[in-house]
Amino acid sequence: MMRNDDGSGTRQEILGAAAEIIGTYGYFAASVDRIITLAQVAPGELYSQFDSKDALAQEIIAVRDQRAAEVRRAAASSGAPALETLIDESMALAALRDSDVFCLAGDRLLREVDDTWDVVAASRTRDRAEFALLLRDARREGHLAGGSEGQPDAVDAETGGTGTGGREGRAQAQEDALAQVVLAAVIGAGVSARAVRDARDAVTVLERLWLLLLPGLVPEHLRPRYIDAVGRSARLHRRQQLP
Amino acid sequence: MMRNDDGSGTRQEILGAAAEIIGTYGYFAASVDRIITLAQVAPGELYSQFDSKDALAQEIIAVRDQRAAEVRRAAASSGAPALETLIDESMALAALRDSDVFCLAGDRLLREVDDTWDVVAASRTRDRAEFALLLRDARREGHLAGGSEGQPDAVDAETGGTGTGGREGRAQAQEDALAQVVLAAVIGAGVSARAVRDARDAVTVLERLWLLLLPGLVPEHLRPRYIDAVGRSARLHRRQQLP
Repeated sequence: MMRNDDGSGTRQEILGAAAEIIGTYGYFAASVDRIITLAQVAPGELYSQFDSKDALAQEIIAVRDQRAAEVRRAAASSGAPALETLIDESMALAALRDSDVFCLAGDRLLREVDDTWDVVAASRTRDRAEFALLLRDARREGHLAGGSEGQPDAVDAETGGTGTGGREGRAQAQEDALAQVVLAAVIGAGVSARAVRDARDAVTVLERLWLLLLPGLVPEHLRPRYIDAVGRSARLHRRQQLP
Repeated sequence: MMRNDDGSGTRQEILGAAAEIIGTYGYFAASVDRIITLAQVAPGELYSQFDSKDALAQEIIAVRDQRAAEVRRAAASSGAPALETLIDESMALAALRDSDVFCLAGDRLLREVDDTWDVVAASRTRDRAEFALLLRDARREGHLAGGSEGQPDAVDAETGGTGTGGREGRAQAQEDALAQVVLAAVIGAGVSARAVRDARDAVTVLERLWLLLLPGLVPEHLRPRYIDAVGRSARLHRRQQLP
């Protein structure tokens, strides 16, 4: 689908072919020969555009990150409260993998090469930082309970409550920790949805997670509203996953 | 460390060398040549023991699963309530990867090849089934809130509350869904801990997740007990991760 009928090769066609091959076979098993054959270009044409398979892979991750940023902008433009935006963003990111070949390949690259490449760490770190920012806004909006209701503040158990920043510092530690949990859940939901037979899809795993988190996360009077928001977002992104 | 001084090769030495190479380079980049060199055996010796690199990889996953089963037995033998056992098991599984070369390599294999191999799906499915069984026991022990406190039952949002099994069926659906969330979190905690600079380690991500889940998960009078249990388990398994 990324090829012209006359077989002429362009940078975009090579990249599309690389995404298809890497999405199917994975980074390490994807051969440049296969990419060249699918793109219907000469080897010289590929190497005049990209130094190596690495360069192709890094550009695929860049395209995936661009799509992730678009997903973020779309979620943020809704004008919804920050925590609703975060919930919607997490499900949109989980659904992204199924939406096009660059996202599928990018997701696979992020998983396969993650302990060796700087570009992967940068991509994951950016996702987490975005989550943490939204959580900070959510606290400002009064949508995070944060132990203010007499529930034990979970972060105290971790820091021993001795942070020099006091209440403010504890709140920020909670937001960073929660951002890491959300990132882990988004990644894990994707991997486990692929690996487990009869698994719920990634969006449904996240829906379930958010519903389980809400009682400890948002003030009681906002819970019905957030239960609705989680269900609405899951329905929307499950629909987008269908072919 | 898996070699004898006289350089003689055995099945166990070949497997140990394969685990070291696969743990370091990943499945696809791991070459049989490298494994042969590290194990100090002749190619014929390797192929008389293992048909292929695939066979080596599958046996490494089997060893990893065996260690996971040992972790499970150790957690279950504590005589603790089922939910405490589940919490401890999840952290032990997350810490496993750092405990020896077979677990590190097995974890990497589970991640890299997960959408193609039956043995991977079987391994993940077994993990999830074990989690679901423990959750069923936890409900019998009265340690799962399950909407009984007037909190919205999260599963109703998913099933529409129309399951023919009624309350029993909803409870089982909640346990299966929660088991999937725990599996996703264990996997995601491991991947994100590797990928993100200055990330909390996998055990701490899970500690944080459990503390966030407790308010929606366990009856109020059991919360202080479980906050203690989560902290205790995290301290134990973080210590085991240290070299």
